[in-house]
Amino acid sequence: AGDAASGKKIMSKCQVCHGKDGLAKLPDAPNIAGQKEAYLVKALIAFKDGERKNEQMTVVVKGLSDEDIANVAAYYSSIKISVQVPP
Amino acid sequence: AGDAASGKKIMSKCQVCHGKDGLAKLPDAPNIAGQKEAYLVKALIAFKDGERKNEQMTVVVKGLSDEDIANVAAYYSSIKISVQVPP
Repeated sequence: AGDAASGKKIMSKCQVCHGKDGLAKLPDAPNIAGQKEAYLVKALIAFKDGERKNEQMTVVVKGLSDEDIANVAAYYSSIKISVQVPP
Repeated sequence: AGDAASGKKIMSKCQVCHGKDGLAKLPDAPNIAGQKEAYLVKALIAFKDGERKNEQMTVVVKGLSDEDIANVAAYYSSIKISVQVPP
């Protein structure tokens, strides 16, 4: 697993769209707060390999090493979320 | 926008992996609680069109109409989430 503290330093590249709190700041961006770490890693690698295509993500992920990816995934998945299901 | 109440009926097809509460029940599935409605619709359509590939999702989404997709997205995005960012 990645290191959330190290991931926090990388988060500056993500926060414009995803926020420091993992709640999307732009309409097209997803929330990633408390997202499953393995899912975030898989998504980032898919954007890096071109398996998934998104203008912003393709640019941002280019500058991330596999270690950066593991760490930033650890950071966002370390955000605790609680849910309230509608009645 | 979709109708969350109608979406709740479709949610039975999703809850094995994503839960009724939108918190992933299987290791590979993402949390989708409180996810942005437009993002969920976009993801479901991408799985339906084959732009995104996932064994389970490709099977499940085949049986969903565009209206089902809008409604189930409305349901999961209607789940309220609160976040706690680590210090």
